[in-house]
Amino acid sequence: MTNLIDRLSPEARHAPESGIVEVFNAGWGREDLIPLWAGEGDLPTPEFICRAAKASMDRGETFYTYQRGIPQLREAIAAYHIDLYGKAFSPERFFVTGSGMQAIQLTVQAVAGPGKEVIVPTPAWPNINAAVEIHGARAVSVPLRESPDGWNLHVEDIEGAITPATTALFLNSPCNPTGWVASKTVLEEFLNLARRHKLWIIADEIYAQFYYGEGGRAPSFYDICSDDDQVIFVNSMSKNWAMTGWRIGWISAPPQLGQVIENLIQYSTSGVPSSSQWAAVAALTEGKEFLAEQVERARIGRQCVLEGLRGINRINVQPPEGAFYLFFSIDGVSDTRQFALDLVRQTGVGLAPGTAFGKGGENYVRLCYARKKDHLEAAIQRISDWLPEI
Amino acid sequence: MTNLIDRLSPEARHAPESGIVEVFNAGWGREDLIPLWAGEGDLPTPEFICRAAKASMDRGETFYTYQRGIPQLREAIAAYHIDLYGKAFSPERFFVTGSGMQAIQLTVQAVAGPGKEVIVPTPAWPNINAAVEIHGARAVSVPLRESPDGWNLHVEDIEGAITPATTALFLNSPCNPTGWVASKTVLEEFLNLARRHKLWIIADEIYAQFYYGEGGRAPSFYDICSDDDQVIFVNSMSKNWAMTGWRIGWISAPPQLGQVIENLIQYSTSGVPSSSQWAAVAALTEGKEFLAEQVERARIGRQCVLEGLRGINRINVQPPEGAFYLFFSIDGVSDTRQFALDLVRQTGVGLAPGTAFGKGGENYVRLCYARKKDHLEAAIQRISDWLPEI
Repeated sequence: MTNLIDRLSPEARHAPESGIVEVFNAGWGREDLIPLWAGEGDLPTPEFICRAAKASMDRGETFYTYQRGIPQLREAIAAYHIDLYGKAFSPERFFVTGSGMQAIQLTVQAVAGPGKEVIVPTPAWPNINAAVEIHGARAVSVPLRESPDGWNLHVEDIEGAITPATTALFLNSPCNPTGWVASKTVLEEFLNLARRHKLWIIADEIYAQFYYGEGGRAPSFYDICSDDDQVIFVNSMSKNWAMTGWRIGWISAPPQLGQVIENLIQYSTSGVPSSSQWAAVAALTEGKEFLAEQVERARIGRQCVLEGLRGINRINVQPPEGAFYLFFSIDGVSDTRQFALDLVRQTGVGLAPGTAFGKGGENYVRLCYARKKDHLEAAIQRISDWLPEI
Repeated sequence: MTNLIDRLSPEARHAPESGIVEVFNAGWGREDLIPLWAGEGDLPTPEFICRAAKASMDRGETFYTYQRGIPQLREAIAAYHIDLYGKAFSPERFFVTGSGMQAIQLTVQAVAGPGKEVIVPTPAWPNINAAVEIHGARAVSVPLRESPDGWNLHVEDIEGAITPATTALFLNSPCNPTGWVASKTVLEEFLNLARRHKLWIIADEIYAQFYYGEGGRAPSFYDICSDDDQVIFVNSMSKNWAMTGWRIGWISAPPQLGQVIENLIQYSTSGVPSSSQWAAVAALTEGKEFLAEQVERARIGRQCVLEGLRGINRINVQPPEGAFYLFFSIDGVSDTRQFALDLVRQTGVGLAPGTAFGKGGENYVRLCYARKKDHLEAAIQRISDWLPEI
């Protein structure tokens, strides 16, 4: 048979497989599986959100719609921001996308192309690097530094990675997988750096409300940047409102970029279904209580797994400041890919290997704690029972 | 204010605005509007299709799902092909995408990258060129030749445009906007050309069933190519089942490309909502009758507008062999952009200017006839009444 792979574009051919899928495949179908590998909770989307989608279908809204999103959703997103950040936002800066992933992809497409470089602090969600490289740009990893009290971003490390080809810096805070949160001081240093070098910042603050420090939400670039700073935010309905399967996100960008972003949407997926957008409107306008419950659930899950893992010999874990993951290492375990494969095969506990998260993550595994407490406790028990065997 | 547009990547910055939107904006909101500019019928999605999506939500299928599509949908797509083309198809060759547009975008990404060229016969749907150029590749237009009996593709014209940078040929048949349909002989010449030069064919046969010749469907590359030919098909649920707003399509490709296509899906939108996929399953398995009605409706619409326009002095129109558009010219009208703007402003009839469809289309306007007969008749009447004034 002809090898057709060789005839594909190098950018497509070299896009990596997800480093989590291999482990997923090793455990999939087990009846006793406790899947803590994905960035997803265990609650389905609340009924009031589904109801809004169904009502839209009943109104016959099954035609092409606005490329930038229906006006009602752009207004609801603006209102959400006004409430969360306590300042003014125009609906004109929000662009509805077919997932947070697509928000990242289109933003990368807007600011970086063939031959350009995007700096990505690591460990990081692996899809970020892939989204950069698939466009012929290069993702330049800059590992955070580790210290006994956790992860630290040193802005001089970022600055040292800037070259004439650099067009953007990616910052995910609160961070998946580490749970690291950039302080306002770090954000300011980062913004000043971007301003000095005229670089774009791609700000991924998807986990803003999953924050365990003071103030109810994580520090944000919205707190410090002005309207015409080169900052583009990517976001998603997935985590806050248990809507991972819906594939709805948004880009928040200076309105002058509107036509370019509309064109990028037009030529990728040409918009998001109206019914899904009405579901998002319901989530944003009626979902405040549900979101508070989600955050509280994560807080309880975090406490549960932190205490549980700390009670296990050989496990090193720091309390994460945000998001809903523990990223921990195990004394004597250096091949975390093999560890995750063995763990799921022998205990049914699914974790994501740190190898999937790039430089600096190799010795860790990621556990998602946005789940039922009894499942989390059972997972800890199984890890605790099994660990002495390896 | 800083001009941020200049700091975007050239590929993003140069993506063109849709050439139809300007006319759309000139007419939008008119109470008497007859919108014949989009590639969309006037029927909402049938209830049995919406019901399947709602049932999926009720089952709580609101989580991440298979990147390649749920197995039931891939099987339903395979069964649809078996029925339509009378040969065997494995579900393994089908990949669910978030629209026919995304099927095109990911396919272009797979086979062409920066510095490469894709040959596109024109007039063509404008999004094809844009999808190519947004990836840093070049879309090379090759106009079909016009003769008194319609449009003709000369394969030697295509061959003459091949350079060492060419990696793919795009072929849309039945064609939007011209209604041209490639005969089996033309498809064979095209396939042989691609084989000789080891080029990919991107086959857009979305309108296969909207065909007014013998045999119930248009000739297809499926009739002549083998499983490991370099042919990738793009398709959509939109036109057959009145599902334009749902954003569901599929790629049909040699299964050995599966992992690469999965990766491209992963890093763009990470899959399609389960509920939408179940709607598509319902359409494919229970929608044969509805589809037959859609085709019959287009046939009636075609007859109606053909007869109507032929009765108008100065209008030159050929019966289209497929799809659901008339692409016609008007004696004395060379600026079709201005014509379409004037027409919608003065009569409320919305047509798409041929300028939007690339080389060879400039002197034409496109009319979509997949609509109610009385609306079509009213549109013809208004055009007929107004035309003497210009």
